[in-house]
Amino acid sequence: MSPSPRSSPRPTIKDVAAEAGVSTAAVSKAFNRTGRISEPTRLRIMEAAARLGWSPSASASALRRSRTRTVAMVVSRATDVLGADPHFTEVITGLESELSPRGYGLLLHLVSDVREESALYERLVAEGRVDGAVLTGSRVDDPRPALLERLGLPSVLLGAPDGIALGQQEAGLGEAVRHLLDLGHRRIGYVSGPDDQVHTGFRRRVFTEALAAAGLEPVAAIATDFTADAAVAATERLLAMRPRPTAIVYANDSIAVCGIGTAQRAGFAVPRDLSVIGYDNLPLGQWLYPGLTTVDQHVRLVGAAAARALLARCGEDIASPPLTERPRLVVRESTGPAARSTA
Amino acid sequence: MSPSPRSSPRPTIKDVAAEAGVSTAAVSKAFNRTGRISEPTRLRIMEAAARLGWSPSASASALRRSRTRTVAMVVSRATDVLGADPHFTEVITGLESELSPRGYGLLLHLVSDVREESALYERLVAEGRVDGAVLTGSRVDDPRPALLERLGLPSVLLGAPDGIALGQQEAGLGEAVRHLLDLGHRRIGYVSGPDDQVHTGFRRRVFTEALAAAGLEPVAAIATDFTADAAVAATERLLAMRPRPTAIVYANDSIAVCGIGTAQRAGFAVPRDLSVIGYDNLPLGQWLYPGLTTVDQHVRLVGAAAARALLARCGEDIASPPLTERPRLVVRESTGPAARSTA
Repeated sequence: MSPSPRSSPRPTIKDVAAEAGVSTAAVSKAFNRTGRISEPTRLRIMEAAARLGWSPSASASALRRSRTRTVAMVVSRATDVLGADPHFTEVITGLESELSPRGYGLLLHLVSDVREESALYERLVAEGRVDGAVLTGSRVDDPRPALLERLGLPSVLLGAPDGIALGQQEAGLGEAVRHLLDLGHRRIGYVSGPDDQVHTGFRRRVFTEALAAAGLEPVAAIATDFTADAAVAATERLLAMRPRPTAIVYANDSIAVCGIGTAQRAGFAVPRDLSVIGYDNLPLGQWLYPGLTTVDQHVRLVGAAAARALLARCGEDIASPPLTERPRLVVRESTGPAARSTA
Repeated sequence: MSPSPRSSPRPTIKDVAAEAGVSTAAVSKAFNRTGRISEPTRLRIMEAAARLGWSPSASASALRRSRTRTVAMVVSRATDVLGADPHFTEVITGLESELSPRGYGLLLHLVSDVREESALYERLVAEGRVDGAVLTGSRVDDPRPALLERLGLPSVLLGAPDGIALGQQEAGLGEAVRHLLDLGHRRIGYVSGPDDQVHTGFRRRVFTEALAAAGLEPVAAIATDFTADAAVAATERLLAMRPRPTAIVYANDSIAVCGIGTAQRAGFAVPRDLSVIGYDNLPLGQWLYPGLTTVDQHVRLVGAAAARALLARCGEDIASPPLTERPRLVVRESTGPAARSTA
């Protein structure tokens, strides 16, 4: 991007220094928080800068694209899902672990659909509010990457198969299915996320293919919108089947926990009557009893890797090595030998 | 705040209109997304504005304080705690329910201590990045409200007793204690949060006073840093006491869930051998089995009320009625009659 040809007089750091009666070095110190400078002086400089409408970023943007040290994350999932799913705090924690040491903030916006999300990106870019964007929830026919490329906004996509190699993704769910097969399970159900998310179709295919390799089919694969209500309903449907499945794999830990509660409340012991596997390895899973067997997809590391990749695209001098951690099965207490044949 | 006396020529909406070959009304429509305007025209206008360095907010700030439509939330809790505790997604969901319909974003920053947090506020204010701030985790001798007042940044404090009247706070925990007393419990333990948080001392006092009203004392009150490890350790300590407590009240749901898992893993049935009460009423509690008895402090409503109060302080035309919902006990399955006397 070449420097824009603007030349209209804007306040400079020299104007601020003159206004505050200090050196330009002092102004720089006050804003960068380097070197020693007294609190009253810092305040006088900040006030002078505010009066003149000067700030380091505004000044820099006169000649080159400004660094806002802000990264947008626009979440378009329904409010109820965001609230219920600790997955998001894990992702945010991973992102922040790379952003905050570099002074970057994460600008969170909640939108109700892709149309609103697209409009928001246009506004954020037009107003020069962010340096880049973290996209969540890769969808089928996702219009966002093309939009952001057109807008010239660096971005990174979380939760897309291209973020992690396909073979690595398979490793986790394939391991889960083989673990159940080894325990003697033959009737295995699957409770997935929404059909319009890329990972839903992908994981279901991996699940189905792992069963097919043993000459089996899923007893059922039920899609949900990831809400607790839908997870309860799907679990009840599976438990009402005759013959009943002896194991259920859930597409995330939150709905797996709902599934365990639903089974226990209906009088089934986990894992004696029903084995359960989740996906994510959220911290919660290890503190419940029985502890949740789950696929660790290293949510925080994925968030941290996404942040590094995005920072590099934003021009930060930062190494962005590919994520090498493969999803892996974490066996705890919610899986056990298959129950004997039930009517 | 009187208008600043600056008069240096900045690009105006007229310059943008001329550059894009449209009317100023069209520029306004393109940025405000009002009225009908074709996508190619909108893009041409955005590009013209970008070339000239014009944006609605930058333009407005030449004369008056700019509206960034951004609110800061600086979280200073340890990374591990943020990740483990779904409480934050609930708070954020509540905040966003009021912010996003008005086009506001939430700028999240993670810091390691109050010093870093204060420096960050100064930078955000100096750079004109935010219109206001949501403060979390009210601490003993909290320096932040005074700092923000000095900086002139509107703010609102979440989780402080002044956010909700003291008597209302008492209602919830007092109800919890009376519920246990009614069930015949006499040996009740308490597991709290960190000692430097205002609500820790406050809730412990309410807890202790409710017991004192029945002529009882807590068998123990153990402070934790809200991590799962600390919750497990505190629970093990309480369960090792002789005579053993028959009920434990936890200062939040996350550590209560850890406590239930710890008790069950050690062979105690909940609620037969041990009754457990949490605090927050996170969605998870109702899906576990046994369902968690807890104090509903209306986390989302508290977040939404805080957002409304802050928006009003930022000059938005918005009603900010006081939060009238009182914390209340939600009885589920984790509490039951006190176990018979144990050695």
